Formats: sequence, structure tokens, C-alpha cells
Amino acid sequence: MNFEIESPKKELIEQLQHKIDFKTKPIGSLGMLEQLALKIGCIQNTLSPELKKPVIMVFAGDHGIALNGVSPYPQEVTWQMVANFMAGGAAINVFGRQNGIDIKIVDAGVNYDFNKDWNVIDAKIAYGTKSYLNDAAMTADQFAAALKKGAELVEEAHADGTNIIGFGEMGIANTSSAAVLLHLLAKIDLKECVGRGTGWDDEGLKRKYEILKTAVDNYKGDLSAENIFAHFGGFEIVMIAGAMLKAAELKMIVMVDGFIITSALLAASKMNPNVLDYCIFTHKSNENGHNHMLEHLKANAILDLGMRLGEGTGAAVAYPIIESAVNFLNQMASFEDAGVSNSDKI
Amino acid sequence: MNFEIESPKKELIEQLQHKIDFKTKPIGSLGMLEQLALKIGCIQNTLSPELKKPVIMVFAGDHGIALNGVSPYPQEVTWQMVANFMAGGAAINVFGRQNGIDIKIVDAGVNYDFNKDWNVIDAKIAYGTKSYLNDAAMTADQFAAALKKGAELVEEAHADGTNIIGFGEMGIANTSSAAVLLHLLAKIDLKECVGRGTGWDDEGLKRKYEILKTAVDNYKGDLSAENIFAHFGGFEIVMIAGAMLKAAELKMIVMVDGFIITSALLAASKMNPNVLDYCIFTHKSNENGHNHMLEHLKANAILDLGMRLGEGTGAAVAYPIIESAVNFLNQMASFEDAGVSNSDKI
Repeated sequence: MNFEIESPKKELIEQLQHKIDFKTKPIGSLGMLEQLALKIGCIQNTLSPELKKPVIMVFAGDHGIALNGVSPYPQEVTWQMVANFMAGGAAINVFGRQNGIDIKIVDAGVNYDFNKDWNVIDAKIAYGTKSYLNDAAMTADQFAAALKKGAELVEEAHADGTNIIGFGEMGIANTSSAAVLLHLLAKIDLKECVGRGTGWDDEGLKRKYEILKTAVDNYKGDLSAENIFAHFGGFEIVMIAGAMLKAAELKMIVMVDGFIITSALLAASKMNPNVLDYCIFTHKSNENGHNHMLEHLKANAILDLGMRLGEGTGAAVAYPIIESAVNFLNQMASFEDAGVSNSDKI
Repeated sequence: MNFEIESPKKELIEQLQHKIDFKTKPIGSLGMLEQLALKIGCIQNTLSPELKKPVIMVFAGDHGIALNGVSPYPQEVTWQMVANFMAGGAAINVFGRQNGIDIKIVDAGVNYDFNKDWNVIDAKIAYGTKSYLNDAAMTADQFAAALKKGAELVEEAHADGTNIIGFGEMGIANTSSAAVLLHLLAKIDLKECVGRGTGWDDEGLKRKYEILKTAVDNYKGDLSAENIFAHFGGFEIVMIAGAMLKAAELKMIVMVDGFIITSALLAASKMNPNVLDYCIFTHKSNENGHNHMLEHLKANAILDLGMRLGEGTGAAVAYPIIESAVNFLNQMASFEDAGVSNSDKI
């Protein structure tokens, strides 16, 4: 599947910078809010950008590798947490409600049949991936279907008027996929990529590392991003990558959450690097490998609160900061409007 | 003026931690949000804390030292910015509106007579401080009056139902006061304390340092916190210190903004260290000395966005994060509520 992603136009960049600099404040004194305002203005190609109908899509999927013992939680927690999402009791529901973000829950491939009445969005590719300990997690057809389905869901949100979208995930064992993707796609020592996930002690961390080392050693496929991604990915991670690529194609703002979501972006960026032009990195996860991912992508995150919960919670908590960036650009008075004397240094 | 500040009760700390740990998330995975929830629960001595009628009081005052050339902006910018606040066009207005925070503007000692119709809260001690280059910025009586007035304004907000309050400031040259207070109260090399403020170049920074060095060398008073504070403070900074001490006495949550506001807290904490138990540090300023202040106070700030605007903007932008801490504690389901299997590690 091909995505045609144009880089944002830069034609307004000087006018945007001028508008920012002549607000009633010292030059540069709003720090990262100014960088966000500039980026969003360029993405929307306007001096007065707007955030419309923010959405966070949470993709859930199961991972065959979970059965090899990489997570301290049992696999059924994936569907149980989907039930928790649908009942409104999870962290992502709380933060979505607080910040006016519509939370959509997608079954990308959970090992469970959801009650139809729950209204989980059905995008199930299969009942979980296969374990990649010895074999590919998914077939080439499943990989293509997952990318396409993610893209379609974003197209629907866009048609509904959304211009800013974030992604969340739920899938027991998915920090393992993210760690291996980081290792192979960014060429970082596997030890640096494997972290405690939902909360391993030292012994569990060591076992997780050894299982993943074996899986990587057993990989005989070619080193194209697509092949690595299909072999070690999860249905939810691949679907998110497709969703991100489509969002960038549609010139939407993409809010990037923590370790798993950034692994989807890492893979997506190897397929089309222009996707990065539409991304805002919302938080730095406490999971070890995320720092390496952000460095590899030359990204600065808005928040660094030591969070590592997943579900898209970093994006949901950071959203008001993105709103602040847009609001100061649109609403603050300029020195001239306000009759305030400027520094003679300007 | 004495403030009777009790440390928050710790009787619920174990129950609060238990409530936090049994939410449907891995232990500790909400990072700083969990620490904030615990702190706020202790301050309010409840398992279900609430944030009520948030207020940011912005105190404006002029500084005699401005006329010695420590700032690139002319002194009239102080009153002009107060006019901008009253017209709703400043950054603090924008962020206050966004996040449902009531912004109150107080004339602590501006060198200007405001039109009564503007409804600036009149707490003027004098038309600006004297320059502390050779003499005290304010008299002992003025100092006492400023502390008392700050306390009274917070009492009014408390009586009105507010239980969380932040402070902002406007006063050309007030980074100079903050720098000297940091130097003398925390015993940090003056060079490390003096920064670019609203935007000095290297030459301006050097001149600012030299003026402040002279002022410090000329100081012959005793080294009590009160004396140093009265000699080098500004009316707005002293009033904020009084406001903070009273807020802590009333068991309100105090949102601490950047360099100037933290200098008020630094001085207040030397007068009564229990004030710190009620403080949430909302952002780390890009102004050089702020890092030293936070280290001295053993404080971690929520945000680090490279902001250095003042007005209380860091507190206003960070407020939704504090709301997120309270909301997850009150609204998230527990493992038991949600029927989600817990890790066998717990």
C-alpha cells in the first residue's frame, strides 16, 4: 500500500514567526509552545490554525509471543482492558473525557469475541498474531490488510471533520514487539531496547531479553522495514502505522504517544519518512527504549512525567498543551494591538 | 506577621497509595500524576480530592532598580501589561480562559494610577520600590503591609470557595530581585543566579550582573531572610510570599510558577518551611537561576517547555495535568471493579 505524503508547505513560515514574535511577550519566551504553533501553522498552511474534533484511536491486539512468557500479565488482560475501555473506567477514558477527546476502541486482533452490543470497532485480522519466536507473527496478506484497515479508519475520522488524531494501544506483550522493531530498524543494541514493560523485576527482564534474543537470532528474512515489521509486529502496531501514514497523507496532526506508538511510527517512517512532518511527540515514556526511539527520530517530547501506561494516555494528557500553543497564536494581543512598548532589542 | 502552617496529615497515605496501586494500570505507570494525586489527597486529607474554583492572582509592581538599566524594557511596560491583562489579551488571559482558571490582577505597587473602571485590585504599597543599588527597596512597614495584603487577598479567595491557587507577576526588572534573593538566601554564586530575563544579549547580561554585584556589595544589613527580602524584594514578590504563606495556612494547594514566583517561595520558606508541603511546582523556567532554586527546594516541576514569560503562565498551562492527577484517582476503575486480572507480581 502506497501513501502519498507531501511535506507541509513552508510558504507561511516567516509570517507565522512574525506573528509569534510580535505577541505581547519577550521573543521566544513561550518556548516549545512557539515551536508547536509554528509546526501546526505550517501543517494547516494558515496563520490561524484550529484543532477540530480531536480523536484518540486505541487499537487492541494479542501477541503470540505473550505465551512464551515475555509479560507478567496473562493474555486475557487484553480483552478485559477493552471491556474496561468500553465501560469508561480506564485511564484513557478519564483523560479523554477531561480534555474533550473522542476515544475510539478498535479490535485489531484480540484473542476474544466481543459482544456486538459493546460497539468495539471490528477490524480483527485474526485472533492474535503467531509467536515470532520461530516464525513470522503475521503473513504478508495480514500485514497489508492491517495497514489498509488503519488507513480506512483514519479516513473515516477525517471525513467526520477530525484534523488532529492520536493513537493508543492495548496488547499484552507489545513492548516486546516494540523493542525488537527498535533494535532492528534503528540498529540499537537489543539490551538497550528491552525494558520492564508493565513491570518486570530483574529476573523477568532477563527472561524477556533472552526470549527476544532467540527470536531475533532465528530471523532469516530480509532486512526491509516491511518484512521486519510483519515478522515482529502486532496487528495493532501495524494498523497504527497505516493509520499514521494516512493521517499524514490527509495533512492531519498526528499526536505520538509512548514506546509502542513510537515503534509504529519508526516503522512507518522507514516506509515513508515524510510522515514525521505531521507528528507531535506528546510524551517521553519511562520505558527504557523510548528515549532511543526519540533520539533516533530527532524528536522532543512535550511531557516527561515518568508515565508508561500505554493506551494513548500520554497524548491525552498532553493535548491541552497543544491547545495552548494554538490558542496563544490565535488569541494573544500583539504589541501594537495592546499599546505595549516593545524592547528596543527587537 | 506570623503564619501557623500545619504539615498535611499523613493518616490516609497508605489508603491513598492502595487506591492508586489498584487502579487498572501497572503499578507506578502514571509516574508523576501518581505523586501529585498522593500529595493532593494528603493536603485535603481525603481519598477523593477535588479542585475547586482555581485562581491565579497576578501581582504587578515596579522596581526602582529598573532605572539603573537592568532590563531591556522600559518601566512603563509594567502598567501597559496590566492594561493588556485587563483587556484579556495577554498570555495568562488566554491560558486562564482555556483551562477555566479565574485570573485576578493586583496592583501591588505599580508606578501608575490605573483608571478605576479597569477594576484592577488595588493593593498598591507605593509607586514602585526604591532602587536597592544603595538603599533598601522598601521600609520594614512596607514589607509588613505587603505580606499582610497578600494574605488578605488569599483569605478572600478561600472564603469564595477556592482551594487551589497559583501566582503570577509582572514587574519590569523583577528577575533582578529574584536573582539576588537566590544568591543571598540559597548561597549560590551570583553569576549563576543572574540570567537574561526578558532577553538580554551578552553585553546586557554583563551589565545586569555588574549592577547587581554592586548592590549586593553595598548591602550592610543583617542576613535574616526578612531583612534580605525587604531590601532586595519587590512589592509584588513580597505580597506573593504573604499570599503563599496564608494559602498554606488555609491548606490550599499552591501552584508554583517560574523564577520570580519561586523566589517568593524561597523567601517564604525561610520564614516558615512548612509552606513547601502545599506546593506543586508547575514548570521549570528557561531562566538560568530557576534550576538552582528548584534544586535548593528539592522540587521537581511538572513541565519543562523552555518557557520564561512570567505572569503565572507556567501554572496556567500545567493546570490540566494537575486535574488529570485528581481525575484518575477519582474516576478510574480498580482491577476489582473492572474484572481485570492483575499481574501475579502484585
